[in-house]
Amino acid sequence: MRVKIIQEKLAKALNGVSRVAGGRSTLPILSNVLVRVDESKVSLTTTNLDMAVVSYLPATQSEVGAVTVPARLVAEFVGNLPRGEVVDIEANGEKVTIKAAGYVSTINGAAAEDFPELPEIEDEKVVKFRMGAEEFKEGLAQVMVAASNDTTRPALTGVYFNTADGALYLAATDGYRLAERRFIEKVEAEVMAIVPTSSLQEVVRNLGEDVGEIEIWFDETQVRFRLGDIEVTSKLIDGSFPDYRQLIPKETEINLKVKRDELTRITKLAALFAKEVGGSIICEARAEKNEFLVSSVANELGENTSEIKTEIDTDGKVTLNSRFLLDALNVLDGKEVEFGFSNKLDPVVLRGKGVEKYVHIIMPLKG
Amino acid sequence: MRVKIIQEKLAKALNGVSRVAGGRSTLPILSNVLVRVDESKVSLTTTNLDMAVVSYLPATQSEVGAVTVPARLVAEFVGNLPRGEVVDIEANGEKVTIKAAGYVSTINGAAAEDFPELPEIEDEKVVKFRMGAEEFKEGLAQVMVAASNDTTRPALTGVYFNTADGALYLAATDGYRLAERRFIEKVEAEVMAIVPTSSLQEVVRNLGEDVGEIEIWFDETQVRFRLGDIEVTSKLIDGSFPDYRQLIPKETEINLKVKRDELTRITKLAALFAKEVGGSIICEARAEKNEFLVSSVANELGENTSEIKTEIDTDGKVTLNSRFLLDALNVLDGKEVEFGFSNKLDPVVLRGKGVEKYVHIIMPLKG
Repeated sequence: MRVKIIQEKLAKALNGVSRVAGGRSTLPILSNVLVRVDESKVSLTTTNLDMAVVSYLPATQSEVGAVTVPARLVAEFVGNLPRGEVVDIEANGEKVTIKAAGYVSTINGAAAEDFPELPEIEDEKVVKFRMGAEEFKEGLAQVMVAASNDTTRPALTGVYFNTADGALYLAATDGYRLAERRFIEKVEAEVMAIVPTSSLQEVVRNLGEDVGEIEIWFDETQVRFRLGDIEVTSKLIDGSFPDYRQLIPKETEINLKVKRDELTRITKLAALFAKEVGGSIICEARAEKNEFLVSSVANELGENTSEIKTEIDTDGKVTLNSRFLLDALNVLDGKEVEFGFSNKLDPVVLRGKGVEKYVHIIMPLKG
Repeated sequence: MRVKIIQEKLAKALNGVSRVAGGRSTLPILSNVLVRVDESKVSLTTTNLDMAVVSYLPATQSEVGAVTVPARLVAEFVGNLPRGEVVDIEANGEKVTIKAAGYVSTINGAAAEDFPELPEIEDEKVVKFRMGAEEFKEGLAQVMVAASNDTTRPALTGVYFNTADGALYLAATDGYRLAERRFIEKVEAEVMAIVPTSSLQEVVRNLGEDVGEIEIWFDETQVRFRLGDIEVTSKLIDGSFPDYRQLIPKETEINLKVKRDELTRITKLAALFAKEVGGSIICEARAEKNEFLVSSVANELGENTSEIKTEIDTDGKVTLNSRFLLDALNVLDGKEVEFGFSNKLDPVVLRGKGVEKYVHIIMPLKG
């Protein structure tokens, strides 16, 4: 096996795949990247058995073959070579020599046959979606924030891709908050699949500015994201996602509009004083004075109240986890947000002003 | 006590002092900042008993008095208030109210009398130095890198300020490497004092771009750095510093000049392969080919050799810790460096090309 590739392109491809290569696995070969050269292309593959990332490069002056080498070592090595150099990779058995002008390394690799790969996506059963990379990346961040870290309920650690009324929706919930984003309208394909958040994080990392459009392929057990020259393939989470749509209130009694940066600021101020009480803060609407107040409960540190002037027609009060509110404010669209709630125990509904495609729900704390 | 200060100035001053306020101390008041208002100025003081930082602000519309409040909470609170607002701080006993338009907090403080302060610098015994802030900051970084972390030899954890031949020198060594920087020529005062690296790190953090010149005051047990509106006062380390000048070779047998970025690059490449052997790399000068080679020892990962073309008149070989070489290359002056060594066991001498004021010595490993 032999191939020559310009340093910049090889370094970028290695960097893209090497994060998935594990350091802590009991299977040492999972720390390696599989380098496969065929007549027309070179592929670099890493996997952690739940997910695989493949990066494709054009092959020139090459001899077909395959070998595996430690992924992070090779990524760092090539990353430190000077830009513009041609990097010459040659395998002799499991010894891999990497050369560039003035630089020679011999790396101990392992046989390609020992490298586990994920099963192929089954072609005849594939459901495909296609959308703009930028929109997908932005929307994914809005949804992933609400996913759970609690591995005892695996379905909640993923993002639920589902079609309804001819549109594709992504949703996530950790039981305390819920985020839903509508992506494509007028889809004909149907899907109901839970994708691990860890795989989606790898997708986000590989969504560089040079990726214009992405494709998402589902079969019954796997999903593949095609991002330009990179493919991320992941197992789906086996389980059923809660019937979340019924949890989104159709209406709320108290509705106000506030500037996103102002609400963020006063929530942060209240949160500083709320560390001893688990981040709990009180949001209060006062119709008479047209004030929206955010305050912390008095405790050992002291207490804090800040106010925003805005139009309010009904009094109301709700206690929230400040971290959840800050997370939501961080991903909402636009400069102004709609904050809706009903009473102490009903969910708070947050939207960007006039934005229909994204909704974020937070369950109140018992005040 | 009451004082009004513009948000930007107060936030900057609080940020400067709050890092010293400890979270882990058994004396809870050390987490607080002492706010003292007198007729003409406000001072903000924090201490960890080894070191104190004081920031001075002009006082307007003020009532004299003093109180202490949790430093990090107040720094974060004021830092999150909008720029341009006037922040109004008022103490009623140990309750401190901080107000700005629309924002009110009441913070539980503690009495100023309980706050420990470092003893004053003794005026009649003070030795003073003065120099440009930029030069001091840059030179300090060059020296601190060689200081030890090993608290069993306290003198080596500090930087040795000493005068010799009418100049001020700073030096540090961890026993494996040594750095010395000359600062001011033609000083009349004399000093021999070891300043803790942790205090110097605090000095560096407070050397903002608005500080033009600094003063350094020594008495027998303390040092004070006057950095514009900020003073850092620290205990000195009690102990004697090694007679380090005899360790700096006057001459070396093999002397070559290399580009700093090229040597950095090939050292990094070799270091990647040297993780299993404690970072040990081999530097070799080959006169016949005018090549300087840096290589790693073959091990489980593989091996690596890179070369630089440069004029060499004597063959030689030395084994070094790659981290020490990278640390030195990172702080040396200029684009080209002088690399001098004699034999396997004599120290390696590094200088910026033609630079007399800074020298960096690395002891070889047994190859």
